[in-house]
Amino acid sequence: MKKIEDHACFGGRQQVWQHDSTSLGVPARFGIYLPPQAAEGRCPVLYWLSGLTCTEQNFISKAGAQQFAAEHGVIIVAPDTSPRGEGVADGEGYDIGLGAGFYVNATQAPWAPHYRMYDYVATELPAIIEAQFPADERRGIFGHSMGGHGALTIALRNPGRYRSVSAFAPIVAPSQVPWGRKVFAAYLGEDREAWARHDAIALVAGDLSERLPLLIDQGDADEFLAEQLRPELLRDAAEAAGHPLTLRLQPGYDHSYYFIASFMGEHVAWHAKALRD
Amino acid sequence: MKKIEDHACFGGRQQVWQHDSTSLGVPARFGIYLPPQAAEGRCPVLYWLSGLTCTEQNFISKAGAQQFAAEHGVIIVAPDTSPRGEGVADGEGYDIGLGAGFYVNATQAPWAPHYRMYDYVATELPAIIEAQFPADERRGIFGHSMGGHGALTIALRNPGRYRSVSAFAPIVAPSQVPWGRKVFAAYLGEDREAWARHDAIALVAGDLSERLPLLIDQGDADEFLAEQLRPELLRDAAEAAGHPLTLRLQPGYDHSYYFIASFMGEHVAWHAKALRD
Repeated sequence: MKKIEDHACFGGRQQVWQHDSTSLGVPARFGIYLPPQAAEGRCPVLYWLSGLTCTEQNFISKAGAQQFAAEHGVIIVAPDTSPRGEGVADGEGYDIGLGAGFYVNATQAPWAPHYRMYDYVATELPAIIEAQFPADERRGIFGHSMGGHGALTIALRNPGRYRSVSAFAPIVAPSQVPWGRKVFAAYLGEDREAWARHDAIALVAGDLSERLPLLIDQGDADEFLAEQLRPELLRDAAEAAGHPLTLRLQPGYDHSYYFIASFMGEHVAWHAKALRD
Repeated sequence: MKKIEDHACFGGRQQVWQHDSTSLGVPARFGIYLPPQAAEGRCPVLYWLSGLTCTEQNFISKAGAQQFAAEHGVIIVAPDTSPRGEGVADGEGYDIGLGAGFYVNATQAPWAPHYRMYDYVATELPAIIEAQFPADERRGIFGHSMGGHGALTIALRNPGRYRSVSAFAPIVAPSQVPWGRKVFAAYLGEDREAWARHDAIALVAGDLSERLPLLIDQGDADEFLAEQLRPELLRDAAEAAGHPLTLRLQPGYDHSYYFIASFMGEHVAWHAKALRD
């Protein structure tokens, strides 16, 4: 474990660490915000999953989450969005390969050796955080766009592992939209059951042992709304399955971090309540 | 005037505009945050001046100021830090030329034709803002590092034009520190009286018709503190002149936007009070 950055921020510390990831087979980076309360004892952890093209930097520098994490005594961990480094395959376009791990374990060449962000986020990273930092096992997860997809699918697939989940402008139906179809075909091949295991719509429609409530904010001026995001599909699936969903269409908001920052305080407060209880 | 960006943010709009600047002789960009209150009537304006290497983007994406501007009903305008474009000279290093306008009017070749950020910030930009946006003539000014120098010197040199001024980790004694000596020699030549007109220490020590209170936050873990920033020189000058100064050394904070964001709420509230009264 190597500390790459360390800044005082809202009375706590915003750090970036690098470690050799066994899931990814390359060095991986994550941001971690340790609130002032972490100097006194163990705190719950909220995992943030970023969208396409992001590294850990986008969230930690633009989302304005530290203020609210400090207020509520919550650690926030933000990993990179894909493996990077020597031997890691890349693809054509911003929406596949580097910066586009899509939070799955790839089974196809040339992706399979390193593109294992599902294992990294769901298993390896929490184990590291809970062993190396003043974190306890109360976990929440949230994310944006591709990272909203990651948060929803990882929480839904792992009942009991997370106390709360939310998303900003998530990809909810990757099996049905261009971004998802492109990478699922590349990373998972034509195995449609594998696709369904990484599709929030399919998971909500399935037989879940736990119906974790979902909070979703979506800007109605989001340039990706109609083609890539399609939150109405999740609304319909949740209604049909009786899955608790709060879907808020936010008038005038787009897909940017200006949208995320505007509702970050409400999301962190919502998670903090679930993590505290 | 051309709108480059426009995002909903905390109930208002974060925009970026480009216009042909008469002071700079090239197209110039500025960020402007219009709080929700600006849809109802005219609001006061807080000008932010950024530090070395910055464009308008650093502040608008990293400082987290929109939340507080929305709370207090204040417009925030953040210009670029230097002229840019065809025919604009550049220098050796990040601390001269592009991204390093230092908020002076250069008199020396090759800088004189375009490096006129003093006129741009003190005169041209407020005239545009007050004519083109729902802004009134209540003005505050603040900034970071080189921009803290700009805010202090522009406010001190223009009694009555600003109701409030504050700074994060400002360069207070440019005539005495490497960053300032390098660019002042280049932009202003060896005219030490010209240097003094752009030096907060010299201005505070001089005969001012108005003693506008100064609020300064400075991290004590700032990597530039001892060599470039030297706030103790301003403390001594303010004490000697009877100039009101609140200088807060913030333990553990560095020179980054993580420091700025941590105290942004207090600065905007402080300005808002002066702008309201």
